Amino acid sequence: MVVKKGRVVKAQIIVIGSELLSGYVIDTNSVYLCEELLKLGIEVVKKVIVQDKKEEILCALKEGVQKADIVILTGGLGPTYDDITKKTVSSFFNRRLILSDKLFRKVEKLSLTRKTKMVTIKSTQALVPHGAVILDNPIGTTPGLLLTEQNADVIMLPGVPIEIEAIFRASLRPFLEKKNKERIVLSKNLHTTGISESALYEKLKSLKVKEFTVFLPFPKGVDIRITIESDSIEEGRERLSRMEDSIVERIDNYYYGSNGETLERVIGILLTMRKKKLAVAESCTAGLLMKRITDIPGSSFYFHGGVVSYSNEEKVKILKVKKGDIKQQGAVSEEIAKQMACGVKNLFNADIGISITGIAGPAGGTENKPVGLVYIGVFDGVDNFAKKYNFSGTRGIIREKSAQAALDLLRKTLLGMEI
Amino acid sequence: MVVKKGRVVKAQIIVIGSELLSGYVIDTNSVYLCEELLKLGIEVVKKVIVQDKKEEILCALKEGVQKADIVILTGGLGPTYDDITKKTVSSFFNRRLILSDKLFRKVEKLSLTRKTKMVTIKSTQALVPHGAVILDNPIGTTPGLLLTEQNADVIMLPGVPIEIEAIFRASLRPFLEKKNKERIVLSKNLHTTGISESALYEKLKSLKVKEFTVFLPFPKGVDIRITIESDSIEEGRERLSRMEDSIVERIDNYYYGSNGETLERVIGILLTMRKKKLAVAESCTAGLLMKRITDIPGSSFYFHGGVVSYSNEEKVKILKVKKGDIKQQGAVSEEIAKQMACGVKNLFNADIGISITGIAGPAGGTENKPVGLVYIGVFDGVDNFAKKYNFSGTRGIIREKSAQAALDLLRKTLLGMEI
Repeated sequence: MVVKKGRVVKAQIIVIGSELLSGYVIDTNSVYLCEELLKLGIEVVKKVIVQDKKEEILCALKEGVQKADIVILTGGLGPTYDDITKKTVSSFFNRRLILSDKLFRKVEKLSLTRKTKMVTIKSTQALVPHGAVILDNPIGTTPGLLLTEQNADVIMLPGVPIEIEAIFRASLRPFLEKKNKERIVLSKNLHTTGISESALYEKLKSLKVKEFTVFLPFPKGVDIRITIESDSIEEGRERLSRMEDSIVERIDNYYYGSNGETLERVIGILLTMRKKKLAVAESCTAGLLMKRITDIPGSSFYFHGGVVSYSNEEKVKILKVKKGDIKQQGAVSEEIAKQMACGVKNLFNADIGISITGIAGPAGGTENKPVGLVYIGVFDGVDNFAKKYNFSGTRGIIREKSAQAALDLLRKTLLGMEI
Repeated sequence: MVVKKGRVVKAQIIVIGSELLSGYVIDTNSVYLCEELLKLGIEVVKKVIVQDKKEEILCALKEGVQKADIVILTGGLGPTYDDITKKTVSSFFNRRLILSDKLFRKVEKLSLTRKTKMVTIKSTQALVPHGAVILDNPIGTTPGLLLTEQNADVIMLPGVPIEIEAIFRASLRPFLEKKNKERIVLSKNLHTTGISESALYEKLKSLKVKEFTVFLPFPKGVDIRITIESDSIEEGRERLSRMEDSIVERIDNYYYGSNGETLERVIGILLTMRKKKLAVAESCTAGLLMKRITDIPGSSFYFHGGVVSYSNEEKVKILKVKKGDIKQQGAVSEEIAKQMACGVKNLFNADIGISITGIAGPAGGTENKPVGLVYIGVFDGVDNFAKKYNFSGTRGIIREKSAQAALDLLRKTLLGMEI
């Protein structure tokens, strides 16, 4: 690959698979690749999703090698009849397919241990285009393939997400890292929650970072994206890091991590460090908060369990909420949120109890207590308080926002931040 | 649009937005559109995701109008500086942008009620390309726009998912339904769970449906996709329906719905019909099952609540599981699953109790009880039983599979099917 002096390396991704054009199936492979390429200072300029038809692949490939320095194709690389990527790319570059002895032995060995038939696999899986570099697949029989042609690196990857990730880590990333990059693009996503896009903008406008940042709002919060162009990876990383520091300094309370960090991981680390055990009482989110907490491997060290109490009866019976208070103030109220947090802490003999009670909708709202009204309660053995929220959105979004707000309230409590 | 006789109407989707090329952000709009277009007998032949740069949009648009009958662009249609779709498409077709009075009044009205500033919006939101049809947006200020040029219908839609769906339902679907379609493609996804891809194939091979079906395996089960080409929508629907019946007849036990139907909705309907109340005890899934059950609006009518008991102590204390049995047989065992189902049914005074106990990994497995071993228990007041499963995959996938299996076991129990 010869990249013009002073130009960012550009990549184009071609996703192959008719099923990705018929709804229901979401392509996450290209999202992963975009993220990883950008970390290496490579800009993804276009993604194309095509049917597994020869003429469609050829059309996308032709455009790709003309416009980009790196073309990555995913999918259509397995042993079945609709896997035509290898054949199509080889014919485009006039390369014969030849049998790789090394690959054949690997396929044979893996196939025996997995008790699958070799007949169809043998004839196709071990064939590689003449001159192609084999990108080792540590967890499967379909390797990645790399061809350098017409000033472009053409890379073929299988369609299975964990195999793409394994190949990328094992051989593709090291290859791409060594590419001669005169100018690079670096980017980082900073995650915030509990603050609106416009309020974030107000806090950051003194930085004059407009050209470097994009705000991406999600139900869980707003991401700030920093993008830096630079002549060297070192200088770029240095500038990115300085920009990150300046931003974080201004939004301290709302920032909880970057590049895919999650609040459930953050509170996991904090609970482990402080040797605190957690218990959870959920009403409107009904399991979502506990599901997120236990997404983290090893969460059993700090998470004891919890109760989903959808009805008032169980709030009284199991969580020892006072019946009279429910009658007087309603199940969705500050007082009940506080009592639920107490009740679940005591029931599970935990150090901290957290609770959510609210109206997720679509029905159940009133003028005084509309859909989206949510109280989150905390009891840490000393302080017992609850915070009120008014969320908007669908049932699903209100539930997502509630769980996120509860994790954030827990984070702030554990860090001793102002609530 | 003039579609050649005997040819399927083809659509191409252009998704505009640099953020969709930088990782983290997943485009679900085009997935929705693919699904809806296919229901109308229209084939999506290609999806292109481009940066919000004029030259990239033009390049994709040029290819689209050459190759497809319908070109849909999403994104870049709002009032901010990077929203350049309208300008770019208009210039491509040499059409002036003119102010729509009707639209201007709507924008003004909505803006006032929402207390947002009008300055920037006024000048851009109400501008439409000369001759364009305005596709009403019932829930926002950005309408869709339709231009017919060079034998292709070019449709511009905003990037906000709920707005796309609203515009599609209100005006785009009626327009597309009226298109003269000489030949159509219809498709349907049938959802199964609890059966492998190869076992499904064995059951269906007598049907000789190979050319019509594709199997799509997900953690939650395998989908069977039927695709039918036909000369008329009536004949196509008739053939699709016959094929569906033949398939369902052969896989009765494993089939639970089609086109996005979910098990949580199915069990919701069954519980409502049978007037049964449900309670849930979760260990390894820790809230995931209850979260899915309560994703359904109105689930409070049949779902009472439940307990997440991560530790043995709480299984004994709250769910009244026998301490000696945990000691003897382990928390992940048939006996404990049965006792957990009993315990939670009684605690919540429900008609049916269901429980999950298992090892989701990555740690915690032994030779006798490996990662992926899961027991699901049921107590319906009469029968008390548990079923053993051995799931494979990551922690997340094992948890997904466990929750899905529990919902399916509940479905079969409610239908009186053989377990």
